[in-house]
Amino acid sequence: MKRILVDMDGVLADVYSRFFDLHEQETGTRLKLSDVSGMLEAEAFKNQINWVTTPGFFRTVPVMEGSVEGLNKLNALYDVVVNSMATEFPLSLTDKQLWMHDHFPFISWKQLVFCGNKSLIRADIMIDDHPKNLDNFTGETLIFTQPHNVFMKDLKHKRVSSWQEIESLLIKNS
Amino acid sequence: MKRILVDMDGVLADVYSRFFDLHEQETGTRLKLSDVSGMLEAEAFKNQINWVTTPGFFRTVPVMEGSVEGLNKLNALYDVVVNSMATEFPLSLTDKQLWMHDHFPFISWKQLVFCGNKSLIRADIMIDDHPKNLDNFTGETLIFTQPHNVFMKDLKHKRVSSWQEIESLLIKNS
Repeated sequence: MKRILVDMDGVLADVYSRFFDLHEQETGTRLKLSDVSGMLEAEAFKNQINWVTTPGFFRTVPVMEGSVEGLNKLNALYDVVVNSMATEFPLSLTDKQLWMHDHFPFISWKQLVFCGNKSLIRADIMIDDHPKNLDNFTGETLIFTQPHNVFMKDLKHKRVSSWQEIESLLIKNS
Repeated sequence: MKRILVDMDGVLADVYSRFFDLHEQETGTRLKLSDVSGMLEAEAFKNQINWVTTPGFFRTVPVMEGSVEGLNKLNALYDVVVNSMATEFPLSLTDKQLWMHDHFPFISWKQLVFCGNKSLIRADIMIDDHPKNLDNFTGETLIFTQPHNVFMKDLKHKRVSSWQEIESLLIKNS
């Protein structure tokens, strides 16, 4: 059974949706995806670092559309490991695990890895929204479209823009 | 540079010392190492599961004698990764990272892995007190003596009973 590493933020967790809500609460203006496309998250939202370092933030993020059904299907066919670079924000760790339990209760604690370097983990396939994580991975790589990566060209990773596309690629070919 | 996986509880964190304190606070009796040798932690301390699932517990554990100096030396010679099966206890995650920062500030967030399955991680050497983690590891394995493993014989792992012994083995041969 092939092992697949699935990222949390920007793949399972729709962090932009939460950023748009918080930006609107603070400024009164609702941004659109096109307003922040091609920018890093910290460039697009000047308070982003304050938001993500606030205890409780990661518990409030909505799930990515289609991710619950999609991950459940993958979990039946692959050795799924959900992996987040969470040690960058120590106060996020417990929130992130409780969030996984809230929304993906079929993923056990044995399938979770919170770390600061994804290249430590042995796997066959990686789904992530950040090229920095995918570029050094030796297996099959899928980049999940998010505003910060939408204009990146000539990537050596397959681009997927929805969980339906992930299912089409990985469930037919499992 | 060889990568070395270093366990937290029972290797860097002297959990038995904390268990003895809590047992004495609750019962008035101070146990000795010989009272709990050969028993699993949960057999030796009937409230152990309550203690380790209490938020804040892992922040209060003393460091293992010699571990700060020893890990600092290893960190100069090896690619050190500190690794804990922490997702078994979600409320421990943030406490464990803050504890690392309290006592081992020279270990960065990029060197930490909190997971539920150590066999996911790619490394050359593993130091752990639990044979269940060491048995399936394909590299060099060191078992750190703790009361629960002290009577185990015929292990295929090198036994070390102090951080001085770890230094003798790994610093001379690095």
